[in-house]
Amino acid sequence: MARTQGSFSDVTGPRIHAAAQALFARHGYAAVSMRQIAGEVGVQAGALYNYTPDKQSLLVALMRAHMDELLSTYAAEDVPDDPCAALRHFVRFHIRFHLPRHDAVFIAYMELRNLSPENFTVIEALRRDYETHLETILRSGNGTSVFDVRDTKLTTLAIIAMLTEITTWYREGGRLAQAEVEEIYLALVCRMVRGAEGG
Amino acid sequence: MARTQGSFSDVTGPRIHAAAQALFARHGYAAVSMRQIAGEVGVQAGALYNYTPDKQSLLVALMRAHMDELLSTYAAEDVPDDPCAALRHFVRFHIRFHLPRHDAVFIAYMELRNLSPENFTVIEALRRDYETHLETILRSGNGTSVFDVRDTKLTTLAIIAMLTEITTWYREGGRLAQAEVEEIYLALVCRMVRGAEGG
Repeated sequence: MARTQGSFSDVTGPRIHAAAQALFARHGYAAVSMRQIAGEVGVQAGALYNYTPDKQSLLVALMRAHMDELLSTYAAEDVPDDPCAALRHFVRFHIRFHLPRHDAVFIAYMELRNLSPENFTVIEALRRDYETHLETILRSGNGTSVFDVRDTKLTTLAIIAMLTEITTWYREGGRLAQAEVEEIYLALVCRMVRGAEGG
Repeated sequence: MARTQGSFSDVTGPRIHAAAQALFARHGYAAVSMRQIAGEVGVQAGALYNYTPDKQSLLVALMRAHMDELLSTYAAEDVPDDPCAALRHFVRFHIRFHLPRHDAVFIAYMELRNLSPENFTVIEALRRDYETHLETILRSGNGTSVFDVRDTKLTTLAIIAMLTEITTWYREGGRLAQAEVEEIYLALVCRMVRGAEGG
């Protein structure tokens, strides 16, 4: 079965990423070997090194792909100008992007400790970029009567933390439908930041 | 150096817990061996089994000790009757208890996946007990004009998530002192839940 490097890579690359993501999320990065990942994909351990020089590169590639997708998806969104509408849009976007990506979210938070210092700097910068989108919305309505936010940085972290945590407990078919969860968190976030004339 | 079983256990037990906690937090439960824990404590691997039958027992003992300490410390607090004051008390308590326990908090959230089903049930029940303290406060002020909370369960989870996340970034000597961080989060939480006449 002769295959070109290109087509082999196209199919196997994503399968390696998917296998690594599932195994890292289940067992933790440090407990997973390259051999295990190869076994999950159904290739020889040696073949894995055609795609990635080592496990660290695989980890940072996964985390980077997650952050890149988050940032590019948000960049393609039609964000309203009005600060209140932009905040509501952000809350819905954050929940909808993260809920179906439980494993990626888990790794993104848990395995920061296992990144090399250089890789940590790269991922941290991407996280800051995302946080800056929310902080910019808060700043844009702050100082007017729309928002009344004492510390836009901490409020950004608080909002992202409470929204991301939904991924740890939300299950389809539970007490509340996703749309209801979104409405409840929207109301909580809006109340956290609203000024005298905020919506 | 003859030592009684009692004194040996008194000294070594806590050292085993401390070593396991540090290693689990650093590398993840699945990546740490009983041999590594023994090495960190400075005892033979075999000696470890005098204190704990296996690694799973050590993990659940750590998580249980953390939750037991959280619940007993809260139970000893003088919680105000007024719902607003009780909520403010809870926020301060949660931040002050969790900030100095970074490793225990990290393990409590991250290693739930590695608990056996029976142990997971035990730890989940303790977490629910703690969440119920906050939900009871929210319910006690809800339906009056003090609080206006649409879903006390989700609001409980949101508050605990945003407060616990502080442990991931707060460092002494940073931009804000702990007292300032507490004040900012107190204000955010109070605004999330307050009714027409809330403080």
